[in-house]
Amino acid sequence: MEKGYSNMEGGSGTSEQVVDAIQYFTGCLGMSQALGVLTIILTLVWTCYYRGGFAWHDDVAHEFNYHPLFMILGLVFFYAEAILVYRVFRNVKKLYVKLLHASLHFLAIIFVIVALKAVFDSHNLAKPTPHPNLYSLHSWLGLSVVLLFGLQYVSGFVSFLFPKLSLALRQWYMPTHVFFGIAIFLGAIATALMGLTEKLLFLRGDMSTFRTAEGTFINILGLLLVAFAGLVIYLVINPKYKRQPLPEEEMIQLSQD
Amino acid sequence: MEKGYSNMEGGSGTSEQVVDAIQYFTGCLGMSQALGVLTIILTLVWTCYYRGGFAWHDDVAHEFNYHPLFMILGLVFFYAEAILVYRVFRNVKKLYVKLLHASLHFLAIIFVIVALKAVFDSHNLAKPTPHPNLYSLHSWLGLSVVLLFGLQYVSGFVSFLFPKLSLALRQWYMPTHVFFGIAIFLGAIATALMGLTEKLLFLRGDMSTFRTAEGTFINILGLLLVAFAGLVIYLVINPKYKRQPLPEEEMIQLSQD
Repeated sequence: MEKGYSNMEGGSGTSEQVVDAIQYFTGCLGMSQALGVLTIILTLVWTCYYRGGFAWHDDVAHEFNYHPLFMILGLVFFYAEAILVYRVFRNVKKLYVKLLHASLHFLAIIFVIVALKAVFDSHNLAKPTPHPNLYSLHSWLGLSVVLLFGLQYVSGFVSFLFPKLSLALRQWYMPTHVFFGIAIFLGAIATALMGLTEKLLFLRGDMSTFRTAEGTFINILGLLLVAFAGLVIYLVINPKYKRQPLPEEEMIQLSQD
Repeated sequence: MEKGYSNMEGGSGTSEQVVDAIQYFTGCLGMSQALGVLTIILTLVWTCYYRGGFAWHDDVAHEFNYHPLFMILGLVFFYAEAILVYRVFRNVKKLYVKLLHASLHFLAIIFVIVALKAVFDSHNLAKPTPHPNLYSLHSWLGLSVVLLFGLQYVSGFVSFLFPKLSLALRQWYMPTHVFFGIAIFLGAIATALMGLTEKLLFLRGDMSTFRTAEGTFINILGLLLVAFAGLVIYLVINPKYKRQPLPEEEMIQLSQD
């Protein structure tokens, strides 16, 4: 473990400082994972206990419940896992970490597609009349986030995996990839918070909806989502935790210059 | 102008690269300012034209309108201006920039206090019966953001302005100050988006509220808030635009070591 993290910023300090840095990083990472799993459990409890569980086309009101669950699984949890891999697998060959990053994002995309299908179905197949789509701020921002995520996935894949751009172009594009990666994640969190607010207000149509047990449950879920996002972003933007090239990768880079 | 920005990262490149870097920074900054002013104008149009303008205690439904306007002025616009000053006034003595930073944040706090008073009044003095306070996710996250902002202001003032901590402690605290500064701003944006969603849904109590001209207006305002936040954060976190110590400040630092 210590060896694996010795390339953190504290790595040049005393061994006590290195151990402190590793423990702090591990603590933050562990807390982020606990919060992530907790938000998924709470979303499951909400959709099953308060919203009556899941169904497909024959019961679109319950098909809707896949929307919040799969969006939080895909665009929040697995998306976050995908951006954390570079901070966690610091001593694994970069290609493998890239493949894991791309795979987790791909998993996120699958969840997002089913989540979108669920919400469009719940509008289009609603009885007695269909509900129109894409009129709320939640849907406008959410669709922007999903489109940006798709664009980001394609351009990231082409640039860094296959066919792969030149080192100079990759280095030029990387900060943009990172910035939009974080922006999309935060956009997803903001969209989720609006979605929770909307869904609660649709239930009763006035403020009394907030004063139910379900209202308090949703508020706690919302704050946990925010805390999860805060911890993940802290781990991702902290320069101390940035993955440093392995010795053999530095040699490869030099040989490509 | 060129001289003022020659300590940007491009400053060591050719004069053409320096001019490019300055133009790009100035373009982004100009766009952020235009977006910021536009969001305030749209909020004014919304509160005046769609929501019937402003009043005080004798008409709490219209007193409420100070809440969105002053929150966007304080916690979004002036807050953003306060964090941008270090990127803009790069060649001004650091103490002056700090004073401007603290003053703009103080202005933000004044707006936030009036905005809070307006929303609590609109609940507590509502007729025939008062509305209970602090039950929505918007209010939970919003209050957390305001409390963190207050804590951040006090600890920033004590650490960096008066009585001022030692250089070592300031350097240790700075990354935390910056991280929470950005987190509070993004929390404010997320809270604003939930607030816009809530207010629209309170008006009619169902989805039809989104399909009005006011609904579209609010969606556009929400997306502009997001674009403003994206540009401001881009300017603030880009290491290229980070303020470098002036030559005389480096001498002061050395003499304090």
